[in-house]
Formats: sequence, C-alpha cells, structure tokens
Amino acid sequence: MSVRYLTARLAQQIDEELMGPAGAFSLDQLMELAGLACAQTLAKVYGKDKYPRVLVCCGPGNQGGDGLVAARHLGMFGYQPTIYMPKPGSKDHYKRLQIQCDNMKIPTLPPSSDVEALKRVLGSSDVILDAIFGFSFKGPIRSPFDSTLPLLTESKLPIVSVDIPSGWDVERGNAEGVGLNSDVLVSLTAPKEGVRHFTGRHFLGGRFIPKSLEGKYELNLPHYPGFDQIVELPSAQKL
Amino acid sequence: MSVRYLTARLAQQIDEELMGPAGAFSLDQLMELAGLACAQTLAKVYGKDKYPRVLVCCGPGNQGGDGLVAARHLGMFGYQPTIYMPKPGSKDHYKRLQIQCDNMKIPTLPPSSDVEALKRVLGSSDVILDAIFGFSFKGPIRSPFDSTLPLLTESKLPIVSVDIPSGWDVERGNAEGVGLNSDVLVSLTAPKEGVRHFTGRHFLGGRFIPKSLEGKYELNLPHYPGFDQIVELPSAQKL
Repeated sequence: MSVRYLTARLAQQIDEELMGPAGAFSLDQLMELAGLACAQTLAKVYGKDKYPRVLVCCGPGNQGGDGLVAARHLGMFGYQPTIYMPKPGSKDHYKRLQIQCDNMKIPTLPPSSDVEALKRVLGSSDVILDAIFGFSFKGPIRSPFDSTLPLLTESKLPIVSVDIPSGWDVERGNAEGVGLNSDVLVSLTAPKEGVRHFTGRHFLGGRFIPKSLEGKYELNLPHYPGFDQIVELPSAQKL
Repeated sequence: MSVRYLTARLAQQIDEELMGPAGAFSLDQLMELAGLACAQTLAKVYGKDKYPRVLVCCGPGNQGGDGLVAARHLGMFGYQPTIYMPKPGSKDHYKRLQIQCDNMKIPTLPPSSDVEALKRVLGSSDVILDAIFGFSFKGPIRSPFDSTLPLLTESKLPIVSVDIPSGWDVERGNAEGVGLNSDVLVSLTAPKEGVRHFTGRHFLGGRFIPKSLEGKYELNLPHYPGFDQIVELPSAQKL
C-alpha cells in the first residue's frame, strides 16, 4: 500500500479536523512541527558548511508561517537565513513569528524591495526555501510573485519547496509549466495529488497524525525512522 | 565557559521574557518543542525494543503539559505510553493536550486511582518519564504525590526526569533526600541550580533561545549537534 496523495479539498479537511474541537491541536503547535520538519529537510540535503546562506521565501498565508518557523530553526542550526516576504500575513500568529525571527537577527528584505533587490540577495544566497504558495493556492500567480518565481528559477540555486512547488497546481502539478523546478520537496502531513510525478528528492514531515485519523483517510503514511521528524519517500521515476 | 545554572527566579524570568511581547512565543510553541525534546531524550537512552512501556507521570502545571506532549510524541515513535495524571491541569491548553493523547489511544489512569492501581501499572512498565514537578515547585510535597514518589523509587524502574527530579528543591537539590533518584535528566532552556551535582546522564533541550537572550543572561549554552533538538551535557563527577 503506497502513501495516499491528497486533493486540495482533502488536505484542507484534514487540517480542519486536526485543529477542530475533536483534534484539539492549535495552529501554533502544528506550524511549529511543520516548520521544524522543513528546516530539518533543508539541513539534511544542503549542509550548512557548503550552503550557509538560505533565502527563505514566505507567502502571506499559513505556508509563509511554516517558512518563518523554518527560518528561525535554520538560524538555530547555524545557517544564515534571509527572509523574502513581500506580502506579510496579517494574522497575529504570523506577526509573532516575524518578531521571533527579528529576535534571532534574521534579516528580512523590505516588502517594497524591487526585482533588482531580490536579484542581489539571490546572488549572495546558496539555497532557496520556497514557502510561497501552499495547498490552498489557486492560480493565476499574482503580483509580485509573478515576477518572483522566474527570478528564483533563473538564479539556478537549489530550491527546497514546502508541500507543493510554488506555481504548481495542487492537483494537476506543473502542467502549465509556470511553477518552480524544485530540487527537493517536503510534503506536510501527506503528499498532494500535484506532486505524484515530482522527480526530485521527496521528504514527508508533520509527524502528528493519530493512527485513527490516518486510518479514516487511508493515508498509508510511511514509517518514520527512530525519533526523526522527517522521512524520505521514494522518488517518482523520471519520465 | 561552562553552562549557567539557573535559580528558580531566573528560569521564571526567562520564560516570561520568551512569552512576553518582546519574545512573542506562545506557550503552545515552547511546550511543543520542550515535550519533543523530552520524548527524544527518553528514546535516545531507552530504545523502544527493550523499553516499550513508558509510564508518563504528569503534574498539574506546565511541566505536566510538557509530559503530555512527550507522551504523544512517544506514541508517534512507537512506544506504548500510559499517563498517570492524578491532578489534571485546569487550563485550556492542558485540556487540549489531553484530548490529543486520547486521540492517540494513549490510556490515562483515572484520577481517582489509588496506590494499588499505580503499583499495578508500574509492574507493567519499563521506564518512567517524570514530569510531575518543574522549576516552580516549592515543597512540601502534597498529596497524592507524597505517596507517588516513594512508589516510583520502589519500582526500581529507570527514571527520566524533566528539568528537576521531582521532589528536589530547584536550587538546593535533593538535600532532604525525599526526591527521586533519576537516571536521566533533561533540562529545558538551561539547567537549574539544584542539579549541579546530578550524576546521571544529563541532556539539554529547548533549542529556541535567541543568541541575544543567551548573551543577556550569560547562559553559555552548549553547541547542539546538527539539527538535533537535544544535546548531552558532561555528567557531574560522582562524589
């Protein structure tokens, strides 16, 4: 039995169940574990000696929050993260995550930064953590991210994406070809339909799904080794 | 420069600063990382093949909350935890942590359990996680824990304590001899004054202190390896 790939709707439903009265998790808890898994995935593939400078790209939603948590943990691990967050989220927990990063002296590009400023910081980065769009993304890609994504691709830097490479359709993948060609993917909870044919290294994080919930949705999650918070999935065959 | 040992007052002050407007952490976030560190410490020393059955003893305060988080993660790691929690905390986050454990099908002894019931479950446990009293503990030990602690000791099971072995004075240690003789200790944030002469294996967890806060309080925290959430400290010399 292989792992189940989730539609956007099912991913949303599982999230709501986890954080509803029955699941009783808070967003803060789940985001902390998710962001930790993202940071650990990046650290596992791109060691800090060779790839110390991480550009963490954050969208305005919960995936941006995962990115901010990851940036903080990367700072704790000894990386030098920089945050690119042109549309900061407006919710309280998002603002608190920003303050936590500020307290770690993690620099954030001003929201007003133009294309040239982003190019400059890409020129002095070693790897990108893409936490721009998550499983609730619906195209088309809006400004300023419509100009951001091509720049990330042109940089030729390795890209680690969270849940779904930004610009991919959550269910149909990169059919339109406008999304990032990420090297590494960290899926949270369970992989999404759109990444079935992702050919880079693929990790799973979010080790917080009770067996009962896993059974109810027939997720067939893989076995995480030891007390790790991430597990590598077999890569899809390259076509 | 060796790690700083904290007074109860200073430990409290650092906690308040982390969760105040300047630190911006939520209790949920810090407790999640603390409890994960506790579970990982137990898993590091007592492998689940030889020590599958963990009795997680939870007090009514925030340390009990750390214990509930640890119980959940131990369940995720494949252990069979049982919770002993004679005085469940009344706060909302504590109740949510209980529900999360219930959803994992982790059994909890009824609060009304008597000495005999606790003896029975000790007889079918392999290791104890002691999350009864934390750094805000002030003696004397009140009921029912005055009868619990001797039972835990008599069980001869290995004990992993969180922050301070239960019954020890946070600053003067086990001077009165009424506390647990724990085998393993996981200190959170920084070790407390009372454990300076702890001779068992000693780990540090709570990898979330920004450098600026570490510097302000001269904590001299050790270097955590890689992306681990715990680090082992050198043991105190046995007298």
